[in-house]
Amino acid sequence: MEYQEKLLTREKVFRDPVLNYIYVQHQVILDLINTKEFQRLRRIKQLGPASFTFHGAEHSRFTHSLGVYEITRRICDGFLRNYPTQEAGDGLWDDSQRLVALCAALLHDIGHGAYSHTFEHIFGTNHEEITQEIITSPKTEVNQVLSKIGPNFAKDVASVIDHTYSNPQVVQMISSQCDADRMDYLLRDAYNTGANYGNFDLTRILRVMRPYEGGICFEINGMHAVEDYIISRLQMYMQVYFHPVSRSMEVILDHLLRRAKELSANLDKNDSTTPYLLMPFFKGEFDIDDYLKLDDGVLNTYFIHWIDSDDKVLSDLADRFINRKPFKSVEFNDETKYLIPNMRDYIKQAGFDVTYYTEINNSFDLPYDAYDPNKKHHTTQIELRRNDGSMIELSKISQLVSAVTGKHLGDERFFFPKEMLSVDNNIDLFEPVYQEFQKHIKNDELIN
Amino acid sequence: MEYQEKLLTREKVFRDPVLNYIYVQHQVILDLINTKEFQRLRRIKQLGPASFTFHGAEHSRFTHSLGVYEITRRICDGFLRNYPTQEAGDGLWDDSQRLVALCAALLHDIGHGAYSHTFEHIFGTNHEEITQEIITSPKTEVNQVLSKIGPNFAKDVASVIDHTYSNPQVVQMISSQCDADRMDYLLRDAYNTGANYGNFDLTRILRVMRPYEGGICFEINGMHAVEDYIISRLQMYMQVYFHPVSRSMEVILDHLLRRAKELSANLDKNDSTTPYLLMPFFKGEFDIDDYLKLDDGVLNTYFIHWIDSDDKVLSDLADRFINRKPFKSVEFNDETKYLIPNMRDYIKQAGFDVTYYTEINNSFDLPYDAYDPNKKHHTTQIELRRNDGSMIELSKISQLVSAVTGKHLGDERFFFPKEMLSVDNNIDLFEPVYQEFQKHIKNDELIN
Amino acid sequence: MEYQEKLLTREKVFRDPVLNYIYVQHQVILDLINTKEFQRLRRIKQLGPASFTFHGAEHSRFTHSLGVYEITRRICDGFLRNYPTQEAGDGLWDDSQRLVALCAALLHDIGHGAYSHTFEHIFGTNHEEITQEIITSPKTEVNQVLSKIGPNFAKDVASVIDHTYSNPQVVQMISSQCDADRMDYLLRDAYNTGANYGNFDLTRILRVMRPYEGGICFEINGMHAVEDYIISRLQMYMQVYFHPVSRSMEVILDHLLRRAKELSANLDKNDSTTPYLLMPFFKGEFDIDDYLKLDDGVLNTYFIHWIDSDDKVLSDLADRFINRKPFKSVEFNDETKYLIPNMRDYIKQAGFDVTYYTEINNSFDLPYDAYDPNKKHHTTQIELRRNDGSMIELSKISQLVSAVTGKHLGDERFFFPKEMLSVDNNIDLFEPVYQEFQKHIKNDELIN
Amino acid sequence: MEYQEKLLTREKVFRDPVLNYIYVQHQVILDLINTKEFQRLRRIKQLGPASFTFHGAEHSRFTHSLGVYEITRRICDGFLRNYPTQEAGDGLWDDSQRLVALCAALLHDIGHGAYSHTFEHIFGTNHEEITQEIITSPKTEVNQVLSKIGPNFAKDVASVIDHTYSNPQVVQMISSQCDADRMDYLLRDAYNTGANYGNFDLTRILRVMRPYEGGICFEINGMHAVEDYIISRLQMYMQVYFHPVSRSMEVILDHLLRRAKELSANLDKNDSTTPYLLMPFFKGEFDIDDYLKLDDGVLNTYFIHWIDSDDKVLSDLADRFINRKPFKSVEFNDETKYLIPNMRDYIKQAGFDVTYYTEINNSFDLPYDAYDPNKKHHTTQIELRRNDGSMIELSKISQLVSAVTGKHLGDERFFFPKEMLSVDNNIDLFEPVYQEFQKHIKNDELIN
Repeated sequence: MEYQEKLLTREKVFRDPVLNYIYVQHQVILDLINTKEFQRLRRIKQLGPASFTFHGAEHSRFTHSLGVYEITRRICDGFLRNYPTQEAGDGLWDDSQRLVALCAALLHDIGHGAYSHTFEHIFGTNHEEITQEIITSPKTEVNQVLSKIGPNFAKDVASVIDHTYSNPQVVQMISSQCDADRMDYLLRDAYNTGANYGNFDLTRILRVMRPYEGGICFEINGMHAVEDYIISRLQMYMQVYFHPVSRSMEVILDHLLRRAKELSANLDKNDSTTPYLLMPFFKGEFDIDDYLKLDDGVLNTYFIHWIDSDDKVLSDLADRFINRKPFKSVEFNDETKYLIPNMRDYIKQAGFDVTYYTEINNSFDLPYDAYDPNKKHHTTQIELRRNDGSMIELSKISQLVSAVTGKHLGDERFFFPKEMLSVDNNIDLFEPVYQEFQKHIKNDELIN
Repeated sequence: MEYQEKLLTREKVFRDPVLNYIYVQHQVILDLINTKEFQRLRRIKQLGPASFTFHGAEHSRFTHSLGVYEITRRICDGFLRNYPTQEAGDGLWDDSQRLVALCAALLHDIGHGAYSHTFEHIFGTNHEEITQEIITSPKTEVNQVLSKIGPNFAKDVASVIDHTYSNPQVVQMISSQCDADRMDYLLRDAYNTGANYGNFDLTRILRVMRPYEGGICFEINGMHAVEDYIISRLQMYMQVYFHPVSRSMEVILDHLLRRAKELSANLDKNDSTTPYLLMPFFKGEFDIDDYLKLDDGVLNTYFIHWIDSDDKVLSDLADRFINRKPFKSVEFNDETKYLIPNMRDYIKQAGFDVTYYTEINNSFDLPYDAYDPNKKHHTTQIELRRNDGSMIELSKISQLVSAVTGKHLGDERFFFPKEMLSVDNNIDLFEPVYQEFQKHIKNDELIN
Repeated sequence: MEYQEKLLTREKVFRDPVLNYIYVQHQVILDLINTKEFQRLRRIKQLGPASFTFHGAEHSRFTHSLGVYEITRRICDGFLRNYPTQEAGDGLWDDSQRLVALCAALLHDIGHGAYSHTFEHIFGTNHEEITQEIITSPKTEVNQVLSKIGPNFAKDVASVIDHTYSNPQVVQMISSQCDADRMDYLLRDAYNTGANYGNFDLTRILRVMRPYEGGICFEINGMHAVEDYIISRLQMYMQVYFHPVSRSMEVILDHLLRRAKELSANLDKNDSTTPYLLMPFFKGEFDIDDYLKLDDGVLNTYFIHWIDSDDKVLSDLADRFINRKPFKSVEFNDETKYLIPNMRDYIKQAGFDVTYYTEINNSFDLPYDAYDPNKKHHTTQIELRRNDGSMIELSKISQLVSAVTGKHLGDERFFFPKEMLSVDNNIDLFEPVYQEFQKHIKNDELIN
Repeated sequence: MEYQEKLLTREKVFRDPVLNYIYVQHQVILDLINTKEFQRLRRIKQLGPASFTFHGAEHSRFTHSLGVYEITRRICDGFLRNYPTQEAGDGLWDDSQRLVALCAALLHDIGHGAYSHTFEHIFGTNHEEITQEIITSPKTEVNQVLSKIGPNFAKDVASVIDHTYSNPQVVQMISSQCDADRMDYLLRDAYNTGANYGNFDLTRILRVMRPYEGGICFEINGMHAVEDYIISRLQMYMQVYFHPVSRSMEVILDHLLRRAKELSANLDKNDSTTPYLLMPFFKGEFDIDDYLKLDDGVLNTYFIHWIDSDDKVLSDLADRFINRKPFKSVEFNDETKYLIPNMRDYIKQAGFDVTYYTEINNSFDLPYDAYDPNKKHHTTQIELRRNDGSMIELSKISQLVSAVTGKHLGDERFFFPKEMLSVDNNIDLFEPVYQEFQKHIKNDELIN
């Protein structure tokens, strides 16, 4: 039998706390899971430093990736059962697309690295490009498995993730405003943080989802389920993803890696403090193999070493990150922004290097984005299908979604050492500085 | 105010997926959580290699320790509300014992290290002794916090964990057949693996738990809840903790560390393959600081390096562990045990070093242990209190518990490379060996 | 000991699927639960005809009333622990108010009758007035229990429900935009219908709730939990409480009782079709004893008898109600409203009495109501307390709540027999009528 | 198209709190649900008087019947996907059997009446026979729907319920030691009572269930899931179904109906106390139409009337039942049984008619029944299928199940008025009698 069609003699299941069971029916999926590139995702936390705020959020990109695969599989099953294509171009589901969809779902995050967002910021890597490379480079086990299906299969999978694949239904399963990726991470992050705001009715959404020529739409009678998903997503952003303490730990991580990069010539000396696996990145000469050796534990191992470094800033920031000593922060707005230089000044007077010990960070989310003809770039809007076959865009009939459409929700914050707020540790000398500083903070906001 | 009595101005909560919220009311608890020794528990998985089998089981000893603290806190609250002592010796609850109980609960696993069980086996460490040391050694932040309460407080906390503390109620809260530790790990492991067998009615158990002069007992009308807990625990052992694949990964880890230890002289050479933080252990000259630098990520980092080692066995075992390539296994019993030397022989003929590539491992649990006057060492039995105040031991009235009392449940397995079962990779030469080998395996058991 | 302070020697618990356990500590609460007026609530469904749409919604007002009691009890516990009054007028919680709060919570729905809303519409009863009467009339067991506490206690309890009680904290616990009543029914209705939209984080809301001189407010850091509650409530209204099929069954019930009332002279004849227990209501001469004999089962029993009635309309409507044969409905708006007389005309031509077989019904909810100085009557707005003690009204900081504040969400529908949409049962004669009728219906809406 | 094959153009779903959604795909299933005989099940509680103990247990036989249908549908789906028959007699699943299985599942309880067990005891009806009659009698709507499929279809459905149908797989789906009926009621009763002991892993059980020539068996790797189901079932019996208070309310109901039957000549007088719908049963001249008019509400309506009866016993028992005033009870055994006549004597001296005010009742369950060649009648044992295709009976490999196999668990109790235990209401005259009586009760047991 062709490898492509090779089903397992007995479908294999993985017990999953969020989706109950994950069903694997194709040999190729099992083989992909067993590649070293995919196994590596076990060692990378899905939410990075958020587990410093929500201690339960210790789940990895491995479990999330299995989840996206499983939701995609369920979508395909529903489409096959209810909307199988009869002839080309009828806008219904062609199940020969299943395998490329499943592989793209499973691999959509394969290029994510340790503390991705921060890492990319410092080293200029791009996890999406790396995902493409892992899928298409003949050096990887992933590519070797995919290539057994056919010579173009790996490229097809990569193009789904790249949004350039020919079948928009497959693309939108993996990436749209209501896709398998977002649905899994909301449910899984909610489950693990304990923040039940992220819950929505997955079964119902899968039931009202349907293919059409333009991609994926939803039946009108499922409007409330889709609406609930949008609101849940918004709430998770506001309450979990944008949590000030998590962002604070990311600020520290960012500054720590920046400091290390600046000191990297000193670190390249073949002793216990040498971050061997990071050196290619410090030097800007890395390849995919270098990248794939990194994970959360590797970076943390170097940080643990760096706590003993002679460089005070490196040592202190490593200690703050490893031992969870977050910066404090206050919200500010356009009217109070002008105060920040003053605040930085106080912090400097208190003895901190403001390059490493202060930061501005904003977090804004667009809960839902309807089509705007004036914008160049836009996400797929959510279309609902009425009983007579006509379509209507979600924000046109949901008053709740309409209320948040196109609005950027979030805040802008100024981060600084918590020492600025507590004056216990025999630092009386600077007391006036602290008092001045604290006068500008009230109710978690920067004030005049 | 005394530090001891220093309550937080506003109780602090941690969102917890299993217990909903964890409530911290004492400054000392918050300070202990913020020590580096306690934060380190974030980097040690609760179930070790079990996450290779149950992918959701990625939770750390940090979250479990918070959970044990919280359950203990709830027990104290219940005891204070319903059974406050009136006079010394009345067998009721003296709430001045609360702080020592809470600290012991929080710190009971503080000495656990990376992959503890295996690590101890190879390096002769003992996590219980290390727990004592972390609590009582003036070098640790934990001890410094505890010592602020009073000069003997750290010792008291250590003695609770050591079972030598004077108040048996406090000891049994943390360690008995139905204690806060077991209750939290069952619920938490069930939640994260998705194996819902581990669930039982915590609220009800806490409600029927009560202090008495001998320690902790349960009201008779809660018999079914206690019974359900015992059965749940049994089921978790059978289905999760004793899972053959997890044990297989532990076997690989054990052999990997053993090999590394044997090669350790070679590894001490100041290059990228040097496991700096492990060297004290290879040399047998480590102190508490060395121990506290280790975590899962540090060990994994070395394993990742070792995949590139010149030593074939070290490299191969590291690859099997990091990239999850478990050994296979079969169950055997006293009647089939005699076949194992033959099986080992086949494996040797197939080219494997049987020292590193085979293992015997048994896992047996005693679901419930009633008092046996003939045994020297025995665990606390579960006592139920009747309406008239008399006690009756659990297995005497629960037919279900009685059925499993004193029985060792589990199995004994023989582990070997999965290559022995699949003959694809051009290894025809040895085919007869494989056939012989496979003839002795049927229905997951070793047969004649 | 005073009856008032009489605590049960051992607190009693009721296993509750929604709140886990309901704790009863006072003798008076147990005695109230055991009165016949309270036990009668077991025989009255909480959601009335909604169980015809959501088959799981079979729970009674009895279970809901226990739930409101329990949530109130938890609020009191939280207030006592965290905000006990120090001196009169400090705006904190005076726990001597606990008993009146608990009794009011338990009894807030005691005056509800069988299919209350419809029953009141036809017979002019008022469940709120009856609640007052049951509490204050010496004829009831409820009043006899309350009077044991003190001569004015029953009146106090009644005044809480009447919103005239002196302590606004107690009043707002039971009745405000975020009270124990609403919180219990949302959770309970969500649990029983299976519509998980109704879920929100009760524990967190209880935690951030606090007393102040004006009643009850919420700490600012709980803003998201309160927001989530408001949205959940909105979603339950849209998806459960306003469901067209439930409203259709209520329309049928309303017309059935109306028809029976018109025929009541004929029904008063001492045979099997006589609705003895309803006769006082038909005659307009009922007292509290008559009212307390009615429940869902009693009304249904008469309906079952009426299916055999000689009156065709009475018989047919009884059959439609008992055997669940709902009317169909379409949404209309101000632009299409003018078509309804025509639609009624078609229905008349098809042989139906439009008085009994058509109806207009609208359902609108005000998801959240902020204070409007121009309105006479207004509900309590939700106040959030900032760290510095100042207050801010919810819709001023929640963009989500702000988006729905003061908006009436819902729809207006026209109900008619489903026979108008299906032309199977040999009714060809009228076919053109049906075609005309159906031309005006598209996508569940009335159209030109 | 044939009615038999007529699928709904769009599958219909019912939101279900326990099974999430119930999927209806066949027109015949929807038509059966809409029959008046099936709708009547909404008015009959699944657990009868158990809701007096577990207030949440208010769910009806209607929701349970839908659940059994849905689980059966899922079994069929799994069998069709994984084990479709290739040729007659291969022991695999023939999906042309689906419709008869679904109808039998849906209708298996259609003959249940109001308070079935007690009703049958007093009036000699038999709900299983009535189920057969409802299915096969041309008078019922159910039969009319079934007959549209084919002339023998109704009989086939009836024979499944009767265990005489030719295909043992279909029979065992509906009735065996691990069938759709038991699985639904355990999950549903657990959900509604809140007693989470009843939970087990339905998804996994459905996954390991498979057809074979002898009926239905389970794959060996699902042994723990089946074991957990058996234990859950046992726990529900011990803790919910056998609860003494529920049994006490059943005793009262039994005696109440018995008294009414004795007085029935007096009740037949055409006034408000006449139980018109019960008269055919009092007279022993009822037919299926009479039976189908009864439900919980009808009986309760008569009981409410009877509270005003002149007959003191009838009035008092009706009051005890309607207003939940349970008898008390004590456990006894073979050694203490001899005391009961004395106890009855005390009760008589206290003024009660022991015929109506005392009762002996035992409740025993056989948690699991393995095949016993010496017994005539035996239930289907649970067979597990090993990898090599051979079978092994459950209790042979599960130590837990083995421990409870063939054991009758439960207790035997003596019921009496609670007045015997409390001597408040000015009944001093008899005080010695009460003291004597109470001397024989300790720790909820009858003692010497």
